Amino acid sequence: MRRPIGVIDSGVGGLTVAKELIRQLPYEQLLYVGDTSRCPYGPRPKEEVYRYTWEMVDYLLEKNIKLLVVACNTATAYTLEDLQNKLDIPVIGVIQPGSRAAIKASHNKRIGVIATEGTIASGAYPTALEMIDRRIRVNDLACPSLVPMIESGDIEGEQAVQIVHHALKPLKEKNHIDTLILGCTHYPLIKTLIENEMGSHIQVICSGEETAREVSLILSYQNLLNKEDVLPVHEFFTTGDKEKFKRIANAWFDEPIEFLRSIELG
Amino acid sequence: MRRPIGVIDSGVGGLTVAKELIRQLPYEQLLYVGDTSRCPYGPRPKEEVYRYTWEMVDYLLEKNIKLLVVACNTATAYTLEDLQNKLDIPVIGVIQPGSRAAIKASHNKRIGVIATEGTIASGAYPTALEMIDRRIRVNDLACPSLVPMIESGDIEGEQAVQIVHHALKPLKEKNHIDTLILGCTHYPLIKTLIENEMGSHIQVICSGEETAREVSLILSYQNLLNKEDVLPVHEFFTTGDKEKFKRIANAWFDEPIEFLRSIELG
Repeated sequence: MRRPIGVIDSGVGGLTVAKELIRQLPYEQLLYVGDTSRCPYGPRPKEEVYRYTWEMVDYLLEKNIKLLVVACNTATAYTLEDLQNKLDIPVIGVIQPGSRAAIKASHNKRIGVIATEGTIASGAYPTALEMIDRRIRVNDLACPSLVPMIESGDIEGEQAVQIVHHALKPLKEKNHIDTLILGCTHYPLIKTLIENEMGSHIQVICSGEETAREVSLILSYQNLLNKEDVLPVHEFFTTGDKEKFKRIANAWFDEPIEFLRSIELG
Repeated sequence: MRRPIGVIDSGVGGLTVAKELIRQLPYEQLLYVGDTSRCPYGPRPKEEVYRYTWEMVDYLLEKNIKLLVVACNTATAYTLEDLQNKLDIPVIGVIQPGSRAAIKASHNKRIGVIATEGTIASGAYPTALEMIDRRIRVNDLACPSLVPMIESGDIEGEQAVQIVHHALKPLKEKNHIDTLILGCTHYPLIKTLIENEMGSHIQVICSGEETAREVSLILSYQNLLNKEDVLPVHEFFTTGDKEKFKRIANAWFDEPIEFLRSIELG
């Protein structure tokens, strides 16, 4: 069916999920909302994240989406269950796909998770992992310095290397993990920095690829795949600075984005 | 919920799927039926495969399974839609998970598929791939010599290398593919032989791993995960020779199988 897929994020991080959705589901149209003006969500109280998330969702429901992807770990941690209960369309978060992929990848069952303060405090990753395998041991770590750095766009050079080095230090000291979940959709934008810091023996899981796979399955399982033969124009909406959003999006995607509009929420 | 997962196959091939299910979903009990005495299904008429598949399904329904995995590509090609329409539990085949994984892996959108005559004749893989991405080009090839070789257990040595060499030759001659789907669950048992023959530039997709991921998602999505904390004893049933089944299973699994029983179907 021709209705679009909705994707919401606190800012540009969800573009890592959107890119994979476009690659793995090229005939599905995306409507993306990035709440850049209120990013980061990580340090905000649960009630605030909940309210902001619902504002994005309501905006997209007006546009008749057939499935919602919560491409923000913090929003997933705080609101997924509520959204799944209240909406009559499928709602896919990023925490369970990342967890399932980590379980598939890990051999020693020791999995690291880096994420925002909010996601770590929620315990959502340990819960999701242990729901499937009670023998998994999780080392999780809040990295509050990373999202502001990524949203600023300054992700190359020695300063970025140093920020990543300091952020990951506590995890490296317990480096018996063999798999690391990037538990924030911003982090794949600095995946190389993180891999260089952690070393090549650690498998790094980006939830974007995994989430796209699961969206593909649910669309197929629910018979919601678009059967048209025309490549769609995706629509991006940001509550923040359009130029900065466009710069980061165009650096991340293979092709420049065609449709970008500023919106106000709340 | 504590009810088991049912897995059916024409013989031992589905063990490649079962192994991944056990690894990725360690707290879920499997009931596995391998119709070894009537294997291979590949050259049989559709009606016969349909009847044999339903006999396995009816056997497992009596045991109150909560989800069915059709771990045989030929049976998936011929019966999946019918099973999904008629059963009130989720039914997962192996063709769509393999297709989604190949779309995720391929960069040049040229995908090879090797499978039994029945699976190739059904067109199930091109249909599944094109349903998601109309730009995919599929090169598919029936390899009728491979399943009998694998069921015989003689999968090492020069003769096996030669059988694989001759089977794959037509595909190598069109080797612009970058991804090869093993479209028969027997083939992962000779994955190394196939990889050596095709060369390291070709990514080989085993549907077992991918199917286990999708079963994990559907159990979670439908709230069917087992929440107990006891590792289950899996049960295996074969219509053929128990000793041969046990030998192949024990070579394939990390631990010897504990429960194996002969059954008659039909």
